[in-house]
Amino acid sequence: MPFATRIDHAILTAIKHGQAAPSPGKLASALHYAVTPGGARIRPIILMSVAAACGDDCPPLADAAGAALELIHCASLVHDDLPSFDNADTRRGKPTVHRAYGEPLAVLTGDSLIIMAFEVLAKAAVHDPMRAVELIRILATRTGMPNGICAGQGWESEDKIDLRAYHRAKTGALFIAATQMGAVAAGQDAEQWEDLGARIGEAFQVADDLRDALYDADTLGKPVGQDDLHGRPNAVTELGVAGAIDRMKDILGGAISSIPRCPGEAMLAKMVNAQAEALTPMQWRANRNASKIPGE
Amino acid sequence: MPFATRIDHAILTAIKHGQAAPSPGKLASALHYAVTPGGARIRPIILMSVAAACGDDCPPLADAAGAALELIHCASLVHDDLPSFDNADTRRGKPTVHRAYGEPLAVLTGDSLIIMAFEVLAKAAVHDPMRAVELIRILATRTGMPNGICAGQGWESEDKIDLRAYHRAKTGALFIAATQMGAVAAGQDAEQWEDLGARIGEAFQVADDLRDALYDADTLGKPVGQDDLHGRPNAVTELGVAGAIDRMKDILGGAISSIPRCPGEAMLAKMVNAQAEALTPMQWRANRNASKIPGE
Repeated sequence: MPFATRIDHAILTAIKHGQAAPSPGKLASALHYAVTPGGARIRPIILMSVAAACGDDCPPLADAAGAALELIHCASLVHDDLPSFDNADTRRGKPTVHRAYGEPLAVLTGDSLIIMAFEVLAKAAVHDPMRAVELIRILATRTGMPNGICAGQGWESEDKIDLRAYHRAKTGALFIAATQMGAVAAGQDAEQWEDLGARIGEAFQVADDLRDALYDADTLGKPVGQDDLHGRPNAVTELGVAGAIDRMKDILGGAISSIPRCPGEAMLAKMVNAQAEALTPMQWRANRNASKIPGE
Repeated sequence: MPFATRIDHAILTAIKHGQAAPSPGKLASALHYAVTPGGARIRPIILMSVAAACGDDCPPLADAAGAALELIHCASLVHDDLPSFDNADTRRGKPTVHRAYGEPLAVLTGDSLIIMAFEVLAKAAVHDPMRAVELIRILATRTGMPNGICAGQGWESEDKIDLRAYHRAKTGALFIAATQMGAVAAGQDAEQWEDLGARIGEAFQVADDLRDALYDADTLGKPVGQDDLHGRPNAVTELGVAGAIDRMKDILGGAISSIPRCPGEAMLAKMVNAQAEALTPMQWRANRNASKIPGE
């Protein structure tokens, strides 16, 4: 079964459990709304690719890990879009959760999805409690404080930003979670997989800067120019478009060299190259029909 | 070591890990602000009492469970106080987190504390992975959708409320988590401990209605009359003050009869009676100096 199918099935099964009656109907509906339509599901696809490269000897655990990671990502989008953060009206081509359901339900949707992520992993512990506990520990580390995406958002309220810590937490954290959780779901040690995730995260940050600078809101399905608006650092402002693309390709080259020895090493390198192509803005691609824009 | 000391030590240790440098200073500070000064810490004290009654054969796990439960409770208070929910200015006698740190950091503080709760349990898995996974599962169930405190808040956005489901989720859920997690931390089966938690939760709901109706904001350290203001159901409106007190005592009597057989059965009954006394408004108590008001 393709990774995307496994991920969507695992996510929708979790959402369905979260909606079981008796439950408040609007919040139940908002949970589904917040995770569909899927964006590129980049993080869980990286996770599944690493699990496959490591042998994927326990597919239900990899499925649970992929779903949990994407649930956390979706939760972060719902909270980041709130009026007190980015105040975004659209996401993935439709109104943001707080626009569609109101602000209280958007806060609760984010909270519920965070909790659901950990619940999915706790339930999957039936397949291997030791691995499940390690998956929960990694996901929590890369989501909360001081090294997760919450820390990344938190940096934006500081007068003086530690740029390295900011980027690593804001964008890198969930990519590190992706590679580490993929490895752990397949019974491998997490530690040696941190570097690959961090590098993919760095490349993704540059790609995100490019998309923010180059595309219009209709193409992306969400507001553009957010970095300029919020005064956030941006690779395009710093290096120009061509310079930013070079930088992204350099980083991904480094990512490929950092792939740990594993049965699926060559397949993983191919996956990273495919990501590089998908992340490159259309007009700079070798093959312009290679992939759609990986919208979030 | 008294329960309260163990709980505070476990909570503050978790907060300190969450603040490790490099981390955004304001969010790091808000984490500590949100969990201090402690309220009555009623839920983790019930948890520790049940663990003790079941033999408390693994104290670090009970400590972690107590800390995790209180972190979730504190997170829920931070989010419930937000302008789009109760819009509260004060909590535990000081400005609410969003008043002190602004709304974005209040959202992130709640998120970070939720995640920290699961991280604390994942780290404690080193003592017993099977019990830790079960603790995580119970905590998630009683926090998220469809049966946790998120569901309870979610009901308040519905036009037609299922009152039984609402109260069970909104107030009961974390008391059920308290009794079940206490039992599981000490190696017992969770199931038979649900009823005790549910009954304590019901009594607490009535007590909360009494406090909301009888005390002023200075005494409680938070705004009063919130139920009236938000049109929420209230036992005092329905039964009067004396009727509500009788009802609370009836429920706690039932709670005592529902205590499962365990070495510390008598001690637990005493704990429930002490809670009943603490929950009773001052002027209706047998001993007026028995305990301070259990403010949250």
